[in-house]
Amino acid sequence: MLHMSSPIRCATPLTRGVAVVAVGGNALTAETQRGTADEIAANAAQMASCLGELVAAGWQVAVVHGNGPQVGNLAMQQDAAEDLVPVQPLHQLCAMTQGQLGSVLVRAVDRECGAGKAVCVVTHVGVDPQDPAFETPTKPIGPFFDEDRAQAYAAQRGWTVAEDSGRGWRRVVASPRPESIVEMQAIRTLLEAGHVVLAAGGGGVAVDAGSLDGVDAVIDKDRASAALATAVGATELYLLTGVDCVLLDFGTPRQRPAHRMTQQEAAQHLADGQFPAGSMGPKVEAALRFLDDGGHRAIITSVGRLAEAVAGDPTAGTSIERAHAATRTAS
Amino acid sequence: MLHMSSPIRCATPLTRGVAVVAVGGNALTAETQRGTADEIAANAAQMASCLGELVAAGWQVAVVHGNGPQVGNLAMQQDAAEDLVPVQPLHQLCAMTQGQLGSVLVRAVDRECGAGKAVCVVTHVGVDPQDPAFETPTKPIGPFFDEDRAQAYAAQRGWTVAEDSGRGWRRVVASPRPESIVEMQAIRTLLEAGHVVLAAGGGGVAVDAGSLDGVDAVIDKDRASAALATAVGATELYLLTGVDCVLLDFGTPRQRPAHRMTQQEAAQHLADGQFPAGSMGPKVEAALRFLDDGGHRAIITSVGRLAEAVAGDPTAGTSIERAHAATRTAS
Repeated sequence: MLHMSSPIRCATPLTRGVAVVAVGGNALTAETQRGTADEIAANAAQMASCLGELVAAGWQVAVVHGNGPQVGNLAMQQDAAEDLVPVQPLHQLCAMTQGQLGSVLVRAVDRECGAGKAVCVVTHVGVDPQDPAFETPTKPIGPFFDEDRAQAYAAQRGWTVAEDSGRGWRRVVASPRPESIVEMQAIRTLLEAGHVVLAAGGGGVAVDAGSLDGVDAVIDKDRASAALATAVGATELYLLTGVDCVLLDFGTPRQRPAHRMTQQEAAQHLADGQFPAGSMGPKVEAALRFLDDGGHRAIITSVGRLAEAVAGDPTAGTSIERAHAATRTAS
Repeated sequence: MLHMSSPIRCATPLTRGVAVVAVGGNALTAETQRGTADEIAANAAQMASCLGELVAAGWQVAVVHGNGPQVGNLAMQQDAAEDLVPVQPLHQLCAMTQGQLGSVLVRAVDRECGAGKAVCVVTHVGVDPQDPAFETPTKPIGPFFDEDRAQAYAAQRGWTVAEDSGRGWRRVVASPRPESIVEMQAIRTLLEAGHVVLAAGGGGVAVDAGSLDGVDAVIDKDRASAALATAVGATELYLLTGVDCVLLDFGTPRQRPAHRMTQQEAAQHLADGQFPAGSMGPKVEAALRFLDDGGHRAIITSVGRLAEAVAGDPTAGTSIERAHAATRTAS
C-alpha cells in the first residue's frame, strides 16, 4: 500500500495558480517505438516525474496529451477487423485514446503524488461546423494505404484521402479551431480542489459546439491547450516538444537558441517565417494566442528540461512573456 | 446553439442526495445489434432521457455503465491487427471503453441537461492481488476461438482459456472484489458541484490497490456500483437490467413479481437460490452489500421503468430497503 498511504508531493500548498502542460503523443510512443503498453507506461513515468516538479512548486496542473501514434494504431486495428466488427468514427477513437492514455498518465502521476491526486476527464472540444478548415482537410491520420484502397475508403466511408510525401495514401481530416471546452467548469472545479487534471487529450473529442454531435476532425493539441489554459484561467502554459528550446535561424550558420522573448518578438519571428509550419510554428502560435487572451507566460521546452524551466533556470527552454502589465492574477 | 444555451433540467436544486445508477453494456449495444456508433448513440439518448428524470427529481447522479459487448469488439480488433500493432492489455481496453462510452453518454446527458452538466471520469478500481478470484478465473471475455488458437494465445500471452457452453474457446479472467475507488474524492467533488458523473465504466479499470499497476481482470459492474455508491455516500442505488423487476419462483406456476423487499427478505431469497448466479444474483448481492454498508434503498428495474421508479410508483421495479433506521443522511 506504499502509494496509497505516502503521497510525496501533495502537501504543497496550492498558491501559484494554474499551469497547463501540453505533451505530444510522441512523448508517450517515441518514433522508434511501436506503442506497447510497457513503452507507454515507461514514458508516462518519466513525464509524471517532471509533472511532479510543477506540483511540488505549488502549481495547479492540467495536462493535455497528444495521441497521434496511438490513434493511428487504433485506426489500423479498426480497419483490420472491419469485416468482423463495426468501425468506429474518428471522434470515438479519440475518446478511446483519452481513456487509454489518461489511465496510464493518471496512474503515473498518482505514483508521484499519491493515489487519487490525478484525474482524467474525458473532454469534448466544441468546433464551428462552418470553420473554413472543413473545406480543405489537410491533417493526415491513421495508416498508409495504396491508392486503390484509399479511394475505396473514400467512396465507402466518405473520407477525404491524399498522397502523403511519397509514402502512400492516407486519410486527411480537417483541423478546426477550438471554440469551447465543454467540460471547462468540471475541470476548473477539479483544479481548485487540488487535483492534477488530464484533459483534452489528443486535442479533445471534436464536437459540433451546438449539437454536441461528434465531428471527424483533429483539433491541434497545442491550440486545444491554449484554449483550455484560457478557459480555466491559467497563467502559465508549457508546450513540451522534442527540442529543449526555440532555435532562431535554424539550420543556418547564425542558428542560436532563444531563451526569452517578448510576445512582440515572438510574433515578429513568426511573421518572418522563422518557425516551420508543421512543428514549431503551431507551438509559437498557440503560445501567442494564450498570451493574447490574458496568459502571463508560455514556455516551450522538452520533457527533460521542464523541471529546470519550472525552477526558473533562464537557459532552460524558451519563455515567451506577456509584454504589458499582466491582466490576469493567479487564482 | 440550442443545447448550449437551453439547459432543460439543470436548475433543479440538489437536495435529495446522491443516487448511483448502474446500466449494462447490453443497454448500449443490444444483443441484436453489432455495436455501430449510431446504435450506441441512440441507446444512450434513451438512457439519458431516463437519467434526466433522476436529475429533475433533485438527485445528484453518478452513472456506472457496463462494457461487455464493446470491450469484446475491441479485443477482436486488437487480435485482427496483432501482426501490425501491439495488442494492448485488457485493463487498457477497459480504459478505452470508458472513453468511448463515456463520451457518448456525456453528450447524451448534456443534450438533456445542458452542455457541461455531465462529466466522465476515467476511473480506476483497486483490487487485492491476493483476492482468491485470481486462483480460478471464470469470467469469459472477448471473441471465441477454436481450441488451437486459444491454446496458442494461452502460451503466448499467458491467458487462461476455457471452453464456453459448447460455443468455442474464450479467454477467462478473474473477477475480484472492488476494494477501493481510486478517484473517489474527485467524483465526490464533481457530484457536490452538481455534475452528472460517469464513473467506473465497465466496473472500472482494475488496478493493484497498492502499486496502481493495471490488472487483467474484470470487476463486476454491479459490485463496482455498490462500492462507488458507498464511497460517495449515495443513499440510493439503481441497478438497471433487462427486466422490469425481480421475479420470485421464476419459471414456475408460482412466478410473481416482487416490488418491495426488506434487506432480510432479499437475503433470504438469495440464500434460497431464487436468483440465478449469472444474472439477477449479482444484482441482489450488490444491492445487499450497498444496504449493509449504509445505503437506504436499492432499486432493480429496467431503463424503461426508471422514471416511474424514481417517481415512487410502487409497481415499477423492485425496491429493496434498509430494514432498520437509516444510518446515513442525504448530504
